[in-house]
Amino acid sequence: MRYKCILAYDGTSYYGFQIQEDLPTIELELKKALKNAFGLDIKVYGSGRTDKGVHAKGQVIHFDLESKIPAEGVKRALNSFLPKDIYISSVEVVNEEFHARFSAKLKEYRYYINVKEYDPLTIHYMPFYNYLDLSLMEDAMKLFLGTHDFKGFASASIDERKDTVKTIFQADMNILDGKVEFIFVGTAFLKYQIRRMMGLLIDIGRGYYKKDKILEVLEKKDPSISHRVIEPTGLYLYKVTY
Amino acid sequence: MRYKCILAYDGTSYYGFQIQEDLPTIELELKKALKNAFGLDIKVYGSGRTDKGVHAKGQVIHFDLESKIPAEGVKRALNSFLPKDIYISSVEVVNEEFHARFSAKLKEYRYYINVKEYDPLTIHYMPFYNYLDLSLMEDAMKLFLGTHDFKGFASASIDERKDTVKTIFQADMNILDGKVEFIFVGTAFLKYQIRRMMGLLIDIGRGYYKKDKILEVLEKKDPSISHRVIEPTGLYLYKVTY
Repeated sequence: MRYKCILAYDGTSYYGFQIQEDLPTIELELKKALKNAFGLDIKVYGSGRTDKGVHAKGQVIHFDLESKIPAEGVKRALNSFLPKDIYISSVEVVNEEFHARFSAKLKEYRYYINVKEYDPLTIHYMPFYNYLDLSLMEDAMKLFLGTHDFKGFASASIDERKDTVKTIFQADMNILDGKVEFIFVGTAFLKYQIRRMMGLLIDIGRGYYKKDKILEVLEKKDPSISHRVIEPTGLYLYKVTY
Repeated sequence: MRYKCILAYDGTSYYGFQIQEDLPTIELELKKALKNAFGLDIKVYGSGRTDKGVHAKGQVIHFDLESKIPAEGVKRALNSFLPKDIYISSVEVVNEEFHARFSAKLKEYRYYINVKEYDPLTIHYMPFYNYLDLSLMEDAMKLFLGTHDFKGFASASIDERKDTVKTIFQADMNILDGKVEFIFVGTAFLKYQIRRMMGLLIDIGRGYYKKDKILEVLEKKDPSISHRVIEPTGLYLYKVTY
Protein backbone atom coordinates (compact mmCIF):
# COMPACT_ATOMS: atom_id res chain seq x y z
CA MET A 1 0.00 0.00 0.00
CA ARG A 2 1.26 3.45 -0.91
CA TYR A 3 0.69 6.32 1.50
CA LYS A 4 0.83 10.02 0.67
CA CYS A 5 1.44 12.39 3.62
CA ILE A 6 1.33 16.17 3.88
CA LEU A 7 3.61 17.53 6.57
CA ALA A 8 4.62 20.79 8.18
CA TYR A 9 7.88 21.44 9.97
CA ASP A 10 9.94 24.11 11.63
CA GLY A 11 13.28 23.92 9.83
CA THR A 12 15.19 25.86 12.51
CA SER A 13 16.76 22.83 14.19
CA TYR A 14 17.37 20.72 11.07
CA TYR A 15 20.06 20.42 8.43
CA GLY A 16 17.41 20.43 5.72
CA PHE A 17 15.13 17.69 4.42
CA GLN A 18 17.61 15.25 2.91
CA ILE A 19 19.29 12.63 5.08
CA GLN A 20 22.97 13.34 5.90
CA GLU A 21 24.15 10.40 7.99
CA ASP A 22 23.30 11.10 11.63
CA LEU A 23 22.81 14.87 11.40
CA PRO A 24 19.29 15.99 12.37
CA THR A 25 17.28 16.11 9.14
CA ILE A 26 13.57 15.83 8.38
CA GLU A 27 14.09 12.64 6.36
CA LEU A 28 15.99 10.99 9.22
CA GLU A 29 13.22 11.83 11.70
CA LEU A 30 10.61 10.42 9.31
CA LYS A 31 12.61 7.20 8.89
CA LYS A 32 13.03 6.87 12.65
CA ALA A 33 9.30 7.41 13.21
CA LEU A 34 8.43 4.80 10.53
CA LYS A 35 10.85 2.34 12.11
CA ASN A 36 9.37 2.95 15.57
CA ALA A 37 5.80 2.73 14.33
CA PHE A 38 6.10 -0.25 11.97
CA GLY A 39 9.37 -1.95 12.91
CA LEU A 40 10.81 -1.72 9.43
CA ASP A 41 13.34 0.33 7.49
CA ILE A 42 11.07 2.11 5.05
CA LYS A 43 12.26 4.36 2.25
CA VAL A 44 10.74 7.86 2.20
CA TYR A 45 10.30 9.89 -1.00
CA GLY A 46 9.88 13.65 -0.65
CA SER A 47 8.48 16.08 -3.23
CA GLY A 48 11.87 17.76 -3.11
CA ARG A 49 14.52 18.91 -0.68
CA THR A 50 14.39 21.94 1.52
CA ASP A 51 17.63 23.61 2.69
CA LYS A 52 18.85 23.93 6.26
CA GLY A 53 16.58 26.37 8.13
CA VAL A 54 13.81 26.36 5.48
CA HIS A 55 10.32 25.58 6.79
CA ALA A 56 7.41 23.68 5.32
CA LYS A 57 3.67 24.10 5.62
CA GLY A 58 2.81 21.54 2.95
CA GLN A 59 5.74 19.25 2.13
CA VAL A 60 4.58 15.95 0.60
CA ILE A 61 6.14 12.50 0.99
CA HIS A 62 5.18 8.98 0.03
CA PHE A 63 6.22 5.53 1.25
CA ASP A 64 5.02 1.96 0.93
CA LEU A 65 3.83 -0.36 3.69
CA GLU A 66 3.36 -4.11 3.20
CA SER A 67 0.27 -4.30 5.38
CA LYS A 68 -2.90 -2.29 4.97
CA ILE A 69 -3.26 0.14 7.85
CA PRO A 70 -6.00 2.79 7.89
CA ALA A 71 -4.66 6.24 6.93
CA GLU A 72 -5.81 7.79 10.22
CA GLY A 73 -3.87 5.12 12.15
CA VAL A 74 -0.70 5.82 10.15
CA LYS A 75 -1.09 9.53 10.89
CA ARG A 76 -1.51 8.99 14.64
CA ALA A 77 1.34 6.48 14.86
CA LEU A 78 3.83 8.67 13.00
CA ASN A 79 2.91 11.87 14.84
CA SER A 80 3.32 10.10 18.17
CA PHE A 81 6.94 9.25 17.27
CA LEU A 82 7.89 12.47 15.46
CA PRO A 83 9.50 15.42 17.29
CA LYS A 84 7.11 18.25 18.16
CA ASP A 85 8.44 20.48 15.39
CA ILE A 86 7.43 18.04 12.62
CA TYR A 87 3.74 17.27 12.12
CA ILE A 88 1.88 15.15 9.60
CA SER A 89 -1.40 16.92 8.92
CA SER A 90 -2.86 14.44 6.45
CA VAL A 91 -2.35 10.85 5.29
CA GLU A 92 -4.12 9.20 2.39
CA VAL A 93 -3.83 5.90 0.57
CA VAL A 94 -2.86 6.46 -3.08
CA ASN A 95 -2.33 4.15 -6.02
CA GLU A 96 1.11 2.90 -6.98
CA GLU A 97 1.48 5.37 -9.81
CA PHE A 98 1.67 8.24 -7.36
CA HIS A 99 5.19 9.54 -6.68
CA ALA A 100 5.76 12.48 -4.31
CA ARG A 101 8.47 13.91 -6.54
CA PHE A 102 7.70 12.83 -10.10
CA SER A 103 3.92 13.29 -9.94
CA ALA A 104 4.17 16.86 -8.64
CA LYS A 105 2.59 19.36 -11.05
CA LEU A 106 3.10 22.63 -9.19
CA LYS A 107 5.01 23.88 -6.20
CA GLU A 108 4.18 26.91 -4.14
CA TYR A 109 6.83 28.61 -2.04
CA ARG A 110 6.30 31.66 0.16
CA TYR A 111 8.87 34.02 1.61
CA TYR A 112 8.09 36.32 4.55
CA ILE A 113 9.98 39.39 5.65
CA ASN A 114 9.40 41.63 8.65
CA VAL A 115 9.33 45.28 7.58
CA LYS A 116 7.97 46.83 10.79
CA GLU A 117 10.61 46.80 13.54
CA TYR A 118 13.40 44.38 14.39
CA ASP A 119 11.79 41.57 16.39
CA PRO A 120 14.04 39.06 18.19
CA LEU A 121 11.03 36.73 18.45
CA THR A 122 10.63 36.13 14.72
CA ILE A 123 14.21 35.97 13.46
CA HIS A 124 13.94 32.27 12.57
CA TYR A 125 10.67 32.78 10.66
CA MET A 126 10.76 36.16 8.98
CA PRO A 127 14.02 38.09 8.53
CA PHE A 128 13.95 41.84 9.07
CA TYR A 129 14.50 44.23 6.18
CA ASN A 130 13.85 47.94 6.28
CA TYR A 131 14.06 50.89 3.90
CA LEU A 132 12.53 48.88 1.06
CA ASP A 133 10.54 50.37 -1.79
CA LEU A 134 7.93 47.61 -1.94
CA SER A 135 6.26 48.88 -5.09
CA LEU A 136 9.55 48.55 -7.00
CA MET A 137 9.83 44.98 -5.74
CA GLU A 138 6.25 44.10 -6.68
CA ASP A 139 6.77 45.49 -10.16
CA ALA A 140 10.14 43.75 -10.64
CA MET A 141 8.98 40.30 -9.49
CA LYS A 142 6.55 40.10 -12.43
CA LEU A 143 9.63 39.62 -14.66
CA PHE A 144 9.99 36.14 -13.17
CA LEU A 145 6.63 35.09 -14.66
CA GLY A 146 6.69 32.72 -17.62
CA THR A 147 9.16 30.17 -18.92
CA HIS A 148 12.83 31.06 -18.53
CA ASP A 149 16.20 29.41 -18.15
CA PHE A 150 16.75 30.09 -14.43
CA LYS A 151 20.36 28.89 -14.41
CA GLY A 152 21.53 32.36 -13.36
CA PHE A 153 19.41 32.05 -10.20
CA ALA A 154 20.50 28.49 -9.36
CA SER A 155 23.22 27.19 -7.09
CA ALA A 156 26.64 27.62 -8.73
CA SER A 157 27.30 23.93 -8.06
CA ILE A 158 24.30 22.73 -10.04
CA ASP A 159 24.74 19.64 -12.25
CA GLU A 160 25.52 20.78 -15.82
CA ARG A 161 23.10 18.21 -17.27
CA LYS A 162 20.16 19.46 -15.23
CA ASP A 163 17.30 21.09 -17.11
CA THR A 164 17.24 24.66 -15.80
CA VAL A 165 14.27 25.82 -17.89
CA LYS A 166 11.30 26.25 -15.56
CA THR A 167 7.95 28.03 -15.64
CA ILE A 168 6.62 30.41 -13.00
CA PHE A 169 2.84 30.89 -13.10
CA GLN A 170 2.38 33.16 -10.10
CA ALA A 171 4.63 35.82 -8.53
CA ASP A 172 2.67 37.94 -6.06
CA MET A 173 3.42 40.20 -3.16
CA ASN A 174 1.01 40.90 -0.30
CA ILE A 175 1.54 43.56 2.34
CA LEU A 176 0.16 42.24 5.61
CA ASP A 177 0.28 43.78 9.08
CA GLY A 178 3.98 44.56 9.50
CA LYS A 179 5.12 41.78 7.23
CA VAL A 180 5.34 41.15 3.51
CA GLU A 181 4.47 37.84 1.86
CA PHE A 182 5.98 36.80 -1.49
CA ILE A 183 4.24 33.94 -3.31
CA PHE A 184 5.88 31.94 -6.08
CA VAL A 185 4.08 29.13 -7.89
CA GLY A 186 5.87 27.18 -10.59
CA THR A 187 6.51 23.80 -12.15
CA ALA A 188 9.65 23.30 -10.09
CA PHE A 189 12.43 25.38 -8.59
CA LEU A 190 16.20 24.89 -8.67
CA LYS A 191 18.41 24.76 -5.59
CA TYR A 192 18.72 28.30 -4.15
CA GLN A 193 16.49 29.70 -6.92
CA ILE A 194 13.92 31.42 -4.69
CA ARG A 195 16.56 32.58 -2.20
CA ARG A 196 18.55 34.15 -5.06
CA MET A 197 15.43 35.66 -6.65
CA MET A 198 14.47 37.14 -3.26
CA GLY A 199 18.02 38.40 -2.67
CA LEU A 200 17.91 40.34 -5.91
CA LEU A 201 14.38 41.62 -5.20
CA ILE A 202 15.58 42.96 -1.83
CA ASP A 203 18.47 44.73 -3.56
CA ILE A 204 16.00 46.22 -6.06
CA GLY A 205 13.80 47.37 -3.15
CA ARG A 206 16.83 49.06 -1.63
CA GLY A 207 17.62 50.82 -4.88
CA TYR A 208 20.94 49.02 -5.50
CA TYR A 209 19.67 47.63 -8.80
CA LYS A 210 16.94 48.40 -11.33
CA LYS A 211 14.53 45.65 -12.32
CA ASP A 212 16.48 45.14 -15.60
CA LYS A 213 19.06 43.31 -13.48
CA ILE A 214 16.62 40.36 -13.41
CA LEU A 215 16.65 40.21 -17.22
CA GLU A 216 20.44 40.39 -17.21
CA VAL A 217 20.75 37.42 -14.82
CA LEU A 218 18.23 35.43 -16.87
CA GLU A 219 20.15 36.18 -20.07
CA LYS A 220 23.71 35.65 -18.84
CA LYS A 221 22.81 32.40 -17.01
CA ASP A 222 25.69 32.96 -14.61
CA PRO A 223 24.86 32.49 -10.89
CA SER A 224 27.85 34.65 -9.87
CA ILE A 225 25.93 37.76 -11.04
CA SER A 226 22.92 37.21 -8.75
CA HIS A 227 25.46 36.78 -5.98
CA ARG A 228 23.22 36.99 -2.94
CA VAL A 229 21.49 33.90 -1.52
CA ILE A 230 19.07 35.34 1.04
CA GLU A 231 18.74 33.61 4.44
CA PRO A 232 16.65 30.41 4.51
CA THR A 233 14.61 31.47 7.57
CA GLY A 234 11.86 33.32 5.68
CA LEU A 235 11.24 30.54 3.16
CA TYR A 236 8.33 28.07 3.36
CA LEU A 237 7.49 25.17 1.06
CA TYR A 238 3.81 26.01 1.13
CA LYS A 239 1.99 23.57 -1.12
CA VAL A 240 2.62 20.85 -3.69
CA THR A 241 -0.11 20.22 -6.26
CA TYR A 242 -0.53 16.89 -8.06
CA MET B 1 24.53 58.09 34.75
CA ARG B 2 21.64 55.68 35.08
CA TYR B 3 20.21 54.07 31.94
CA LYS B 4 16.78 52.47 31.59
CA CYS B 5 16.40 49.98 28.73
CA ILE B 6 13.35 48.23 27.31
CA LEU B 7 14.17 44.89 25.74
CA ALA B 8 12.53 42.03 23.90
CA TYR B 9 13.81 38.49 23.76
CA ASP B 10 13.00 35.02 22.54
CA GLY B 11 13.29 32.86 25.67
CA THR B 12 13.52 29.57 23.76
CA SER B 13 17.30 29.20 24.00
CA TYR B 14 17.76 30.62 27.51
CA TYR B 15 17.57 29.31 31.06
CA GLY B 16 15.51 32.31 32.07
CA PHE B 17 16.48 35.88 32.89
CA GLN B 18 18.52 35.43 36.05
CA ILE B 19 22.21 34.61 35.83
CA GLN B 20 23.12 30.99 36.66
CA GLU B 21 26.89 30.74 36.37
CA ASP B 22 27.76 30.04 32.73
CA LEU B 23 24.39 28.74 31.55
CA PRO B 24 22.87 30.86 28.77
CA THR B 25 20.65 33.44 30.47
CA ILE B 26 19.42 36.87 29.43
CA GLU B 27 21.27 38.55 32.32
CA LEU B 28 24.55 36.88 31.33
CA GLU B 29 24.18 38.03 27.71
CA LEU B 30 23.46 41.59 28.89
CA LYS B 31 26.53 41.57 31.16
CA LYS B 32 28.70 40.24 28.34
CA ALA B 33 27.40 42.92 25.96
CA LEU B 34 28.04 45.67 28.55
CA LYS B 35 31.55 44.35 29.12
CA ASN B 36 32.23 44.23 25.37
CA ALA B 37 30.77 47.68 24.79
CA PHE B 38 32.23 49.54 27.79
CA GLY B 39 35.06 47.32 29.06
CA LEU B 40 33.65 47.07 32.55
CA ASP B 41 31.81 44.60 34.74
CA ILE B 42 28.48 46.37 35.14
CA LYS B 43 25.66 45.17 37.37
CA VAL B 44 22.28 44.81 35.63
CA TYR B 45 18.97 45.18 37.47
CA GLY B 46 15.87 43.67 35.87
CA SER B 47 12.22 44.46 36.62
CA GLY B 48 11.89 40.82 37.59
CA ARG B 49 12.88 37.36 36.47
CA THR B 50 11.36 35.37 33.67
CA ASP B 51 11.49 31.56 33.72
CA LYS B 52 13.27 29.31 31.23
CA GLY B 53 11.43 29.49 27.89
CA VAL B 54 9.39 32.60 28.79
CA HIS B 55 9.60 35.46 26.29
CA ALA B 56 9.62 39.23 26.71
CA LYS B 57 8.28 42.04 24.57
CA GLY B 58 8.89 44.75 27.17
CA GLN B 59 11.29 43.64 29.91
CA VAL B 60 12.96 46.61 31.63
CA ILE B 61 16.47 46.81 33.08
CA HIS B 62 18.66 49.55 34.47
CA PHE B 63 22.41 49.93 34.99
CA ASP B 64 24.87 52.72 35.78
CA LEU B 65 27.72 53.97 33.62
CA GLU B 66 30.47 56.26 34.91
CA SER B 67 30.74 58.25 31.73
CA LYS B 68 27.93 60.06 29.96
CA ILE B 69 27.15 58.35 26.67
CA PRO B 70 24.14 59.38 24.55
CA ALA B 71 21.23 56.94 24.95
CA GLU B 72 21.16 56.18 21.21
CA GLY B 73 24.85 55.24 21.32
CA VAL B 74 24.29 52.89 24.25
CA LYS B 75 21.43 51.25 22.34
CA ARG B 76 23.53 50.70 19.21
CA ALA B 77 26.56 49.47 21.12
CA LEU B 78 24.61 46.93 23.18
CA ASN B 79 22.54 45.64 20.26
CA SER B 80 25.71 45.13 18.23
CA PHE B 81 27.06 42.79 20.92
CA LEU B 82 23.83 41.04 21.90
CA PRO B 83 22.74 37.77 20.25
CA LYS B 84 20.07 38.17 17.56
CA ASP B 85 17.31 36.83 19.82
CA ILE B 86 17.74 39.65 22.37
CA TYR B 87 17.03 43.23 21.27
CA ILE B 88 17.05 46.53 23.13
CA SER B 89 14.28 48.63 21.61
CA SER B 90 14.74 51.75 23.73
CA VAL B 91 17.32 53.36 26.01
CA GLU B 92 16.80 56.47 28.08
CA VAL B 93 18.77 58.32 30.73
CA VAL B 94 16.88 58.34 34.04
CA ASN B 95 17.56 59.87 37.42
CA GLU B 96 19.19 57.88 40.21
CA GLU B 97 15.92 57.26 42.00
CA PHE B 98 14.73 55.03 39.19
CA HIS B 99 15.04 51.30 39.90
CA ALA B 100 13.89 48.73 37.32
CA ARG B 101 12.45 46.48 40.02
CA PHE B 102 11.46 48.69 42.93
CA SER B 103 10.01 51.57 40.89
CA ALA B 104 7.73 49.27 38.84
CA LYS B 105 4.06 50.14 39.34
CA LEU B 106 2.36 47.63 37.04
CA LYS B 107 3.30 44.57 35.09
CA GLU B 108 1.51 43.21 32.08
CA TYR B 109 1.88 39.59 31.07
CA ARG B 110 0.24 37.93 28.07
CA TYR B 111 -0.27 34.27 27.38
CA TYR B 112 -1.04 32.95 23.88
CA ILE B 113 -2.51 29.60 22.93
CA ASN B 114 -3.13 28.15 19.48
CA VAL B 115 -6.68 26.80 19.24
CA LYS B 116 -6.86 26.25 15.47
CA GLU B 117 -4.78 23.25 14.44
CA TYR B 118 -1.54 21.82 15.78
CA ASP B 119 1.25 23.87 14.22
CA PRO B 120 4.86 22.64 14.53
CA LEU B 121 6.03 26.15 13.59
CA THR B 122 4.65 27.89 16.68
CA ILE B 123 5.27 25.35 19.46
CA HIS B 124 7.84 27.58 21.18
CA TYR B 125 5.55 30.63 21.07
CA MET B 126 1.96 29.49 21.49
CA PRO B 127 1.13 25.99 22.83
CA PHE B 128 -1.74 24.13 21.21
CA TYR B 129 -4.93 23.43 23.17
CA ASN B 130 -8.15 22.21 21.66
CA TYR B 131 -11.68 21.36 22.84
CA LEU B 132 -11.78 24.42 25.08
CA ASP B 133 -14.96 26.22 26.07
CA LEU B 134 -13.52 29.72 25.79
CA SER B 135 -16.58 31.46 27.25
CA LEU B 136 -16.20 29.44 30.47
CA MET B 137 -12.55 30.52 30.63
CA GLU B 138 -13.32 34.18 29.99
CA ASP B 139 -15.98 34.13 32.71
CA ALA B 140 -13.74 32.31 35.21
CA MET B 141 -10.70 34.54 34.75
CA LYS B 142 -12.63 37.54 36.10
CA LEU B 143 -12.36 35.88 39.55
CA PHE B 144 -8.66 36.77 39.51
CA LEU B 145 -9.50 40.49 39.49
CA GLY B 146 -8.90 42.45 42.68
CA THR B 147 -6.67 41.98 45.70
CA HIS B 148 -6.11 38.40 46.84
CA ASP B 149 -3.57 36.26 48.60
CA PHE B 150 -2.22 34.35 45.58
CA LYS B 151 -0.12 31.92 47.61
CA GLY B 152 -2.17 29.01 46.23
CA PHE B 153 -1.04 29.96 42.71
CA ALA B 154 2.62 30.48 43.61
CA SER B 155 5.59 28.15 43.38
CA ALA B 156 5.49 25.60 46.22
CA SER B 157 9.06 26.59 47.08
CA ILE B 158 8.22 30.24 47.70
CA ASP B 159 9.86 31.98 50.67
CA GLU B 160 7.46 31.87 53.66
CA ARG B 161 8.20 35.51 54.49
CA LYS B 162 7.25 36.76 51.05
CA ASP B 163 4.16 38.94 50.75
CA THR B 164 1.79 36.90 48.58
CA VAL B 165 -1.05 39.46 48.56
CA LYS B 166 -1.20 41.04 45.09
CA THR B 167 -3.72 43.00 43.06
CA ILE B 168 -4.83 42.19 39.53
CA PHE B 169 -6.40 45.14 37.67
CA GLN B 170 -7.01 43.56 34.30
CA ALA B 171 -7.80 39.97 33.25
CA ASP B 172 -9.01 39.88 29.65
CA MET B 173 -9.30 37.31 26.92
CA ASN B 174 -9.25 38.12 23.19
CA ILE B 175 -10.06 35.64 20.47
CA LEU B 176 -7.85 36.42 17.50
CA ASP B 177 -7.46 34.57 14.20
CA GLY B 178 -6.79 31.00 15.36
CA LYS B 179 -5.20 32.04 18.62
CA VAL B 180 -6.36 33.28 21.99
CA GLU B 181 -4.66 36.04 23.94
CA PHE B 182 -4.91 36.28 27.74
CA ILE B 183 -3.93 39.62 29.30
CA PHE B 184 -3.07 40.02 32.97
CA VAL B 185 -2.13 43.38 34.47
CA GLY B 186 -1.24 43.62 38.15
CA THR B 187 1.02 45.15 40.75
CA ALA B 188 3.34 42.15 40.67
CA PHE B 189 3.16 38.41 40.10
CA LEU B 190 4.64 35.54 42.10
CA LYS B 191 6.87 32.85 40.63
CA TYR B 192 4.71 30.47 38.51
CA GLN B 193 1.57 32.51 39.33
CA ILE B 194 0.43 33.16 35.76
CA ARG B 195 1.43 29.70 34.57
CA ARG B 196 -0.62 28.15 37.42
CA MET B 197 -3.57 30.51 36.81
CA MET B 198 -3.48 29.60 33.11
CA GLY B 199 -3.19 25.89 33.91
CA LEU B 200 -6.36 26.04 35.96
CA LEU B 201 -8.14 28.15 33.32
CA ILE B 202 -7.31 25.51 30.68
CA ASP B 203 -8.72 22.81 32.95
CA ILE B 204 -11.88 24.90 33.41
CA GLY B 205 -12.11 25.33 29.63
CA ARG B 206 -11.90 21.56 29.27
CA GLY B 207 -14.65 21.05 31.81
CA TYR B 208 -12.47 19.33 34.43
CA TYR B 209 -13.25 22.02 36.98
CA LYS B 210 -15.89 24.66 37.57
CA LYS B 211 -14.81 28.26 38.10
CA ASP B 212 -15.33 27.86 41.86
CA LYS B 213 -12.04 25.94 41.88
CA ILE B 214 -10.31 29.35 41.57
CA LEU B 215 -11.96 30.54 44.78
CA GLU B 216 -10.97 27.30 46.51
CA VAL B 217 -7.30 27.72 45.53
CA LEU B 218 -7.34 31.36 46.67
CA GLU B 219 -8.92 30.37 50.02
CA LYS B 220 -6.82 27.31 50.83
CA LYS B 221 -3.54 29.03 49.86
CA ASP B 222 -2.01 25.65 49.04
CA PRO B 223 -0.11 25.44 45.72
CA SER B 224 -0.54 21.65 45.60
CA ILE B 225 -4.24 22.14 44.76
CA SER B 226 -3.60 24.21 41.61
CA HIS B 227 -1.18 21.47 40.64
CA ARG B 228 -0.60 22.33 36.99
CA VAL B 229 2.12 24.78 35.94
CA ILE B 230 1.42 25.33 32.24
CA GLU B 231 4.35 25.42 29.79
CA PRO B 232 6.41 28.63 29.70
CA THR B 233 6.37 28.90 25.90
CA GLY B 234 3.12 30.89 25.61
CA LEU B 235 4.07 33.47 28.24
CA TYR B 236 5.33 36.98 27.44
CA LEU B 237 6.39 39.73 29.83
CA TYR B 238 4.62 42.37 27.79
CA LYS B 239 5.05 45.69 29.55
CA VAL B 240 6.28 47.22 32.79
CA THR B 241 4.77 50.55 33.83
CA TYR B 242 6.58 53.01 36.12
